[in-house]
Amino acid sequence: MAVEVKCPYKLYDEVVLFNGKWMQARQIRFRTADGTEGVWQSAHRNTRPAGASADGVSIIGVLRRADKKFIVLVKQYRIPLGKFCLEFPAAEQAALRELKEETGYTASRVISTSESCGLDPGLTDDSVNLVMVEIDGDAPENVNPSQKLDSTESIDVILLEHDQLLNYVRNAGKDVVVEACLYAYAMGTQFAQMA
Amino acid sequence: MAVEVKCPYKLYDEVVLFNGKWMQARQIRFRTADGTEGVWQSAHRNTRPAGASADGVSIIGVLRRADKKFIVLVKQYRIPLGKFCLEFPAAEQAALRELKEETGYTASRVISTSESCGLDPGLTDDSVNLVMVEIDGDAPENVNPSQKLDSTESIDVILLEHDQLLNYVRNAGKDVVVEACLYAYAMGTQFAQMA
Repeated sequence: MAVEVKCPYKLYDEVVLFNGKWMQARQIRFRTADGTEGVWQSAHRNTRPAGASADGVSIIGVLRRADKKFIVLVKQYRIPLGKFCLEFPAAEQAALRELKEETGYTASRVISTSESCGLDPGLTDDSVNLVMVEIDGDAPENVNPSQKLDSTESIDVILLEHDQLLNYVRNAGKDVVVEACLYAYAMGTQFAQMA
Repeated sequence: MAVEVKCPYKLYDEVVLFNGKWMQARQIRFRTADGTEGVWQSAHRNTRPAGASADGVSIIGVLRRADKKFIVLVKQYRIPLGKFCLEFPAAEQAALRELKEETGYTASRVISTSESCGLDPGLTDDSVNLVMVEIDGDAPENVNPSQKLDSTESIDVILLEHDQLLNYVRNAGKDVVVEACLYAYAMGTQFAQMA
């Protein structure tokens, strides 16, 4: 399925507009095959760990407890949004250890993992691996989970019955933004129920 | 479900680091309740249309043809990634008209629409409405659809049997990045099939 594809633009005159500790803004000029010229400005993280395939990991944690399925979400204040955001738990590198630190839950196995995905490909190369994991909600370590957060982190953990997910994100309220990935995941579960 | 929630940080000393035609980079300082101080750098679009609730629209186009369900995707070169990206078709404002321009397909109805969702809430307030639409694949206007692209656009349309979606995004290949929303949607359809 992997077909070699070439950039349809001539790219030139790339400049770094701003280079900070955590992020960089860049601009590049492009010319299309028919000679139309344009400019593209973009944002890039300066923080990707050496050797990492993506800038972060988002964890889709499916918890099974007493024959029901739940999903583990987090809600935290996001400074770029100026609002609280409902999201999949995130990790920087060691997904399962960081899931435990951020949410308290211990995953028992990885169900599937994506390649590096683009979070916002029109604006940035910021990227994420989506990792779906199973959590045994009846295991002793998952009955009263407790987070281990850094002093700058303030993260609420939300355990939601999986069947309620789409309804929940739809009604998250005006003060809470839902992460697009999470909303799209919920819509995927909805599709599967369509006739 | 909407509970009033307050920012857990004291935010101060916001500065615009770079202000371009299309995007802005900003920095703000924050102090947590326990006195820990930090800095957050973020990217913001300067292009949101007046009155729009989000910066763009992503369209989940479910096409029905001869009792089968398909999904309409696009592949285009994304300058911020330096790679081709497989994505939901995007629109800026008039979702259904722009779906037709970008992909050639005419939607017959909107199945559901999200609120404004955060594409990459740790980095930016760039946002999207996810709109799921139905396309009658047997209607005459959808048999030989043709795109109407701007001169700077180069977009391949991919019509995929919906059941094959997860397999397709998993095997998109090294030269193609999959948009995180699309991958998460595919994982949502997978979840729905889990025992």
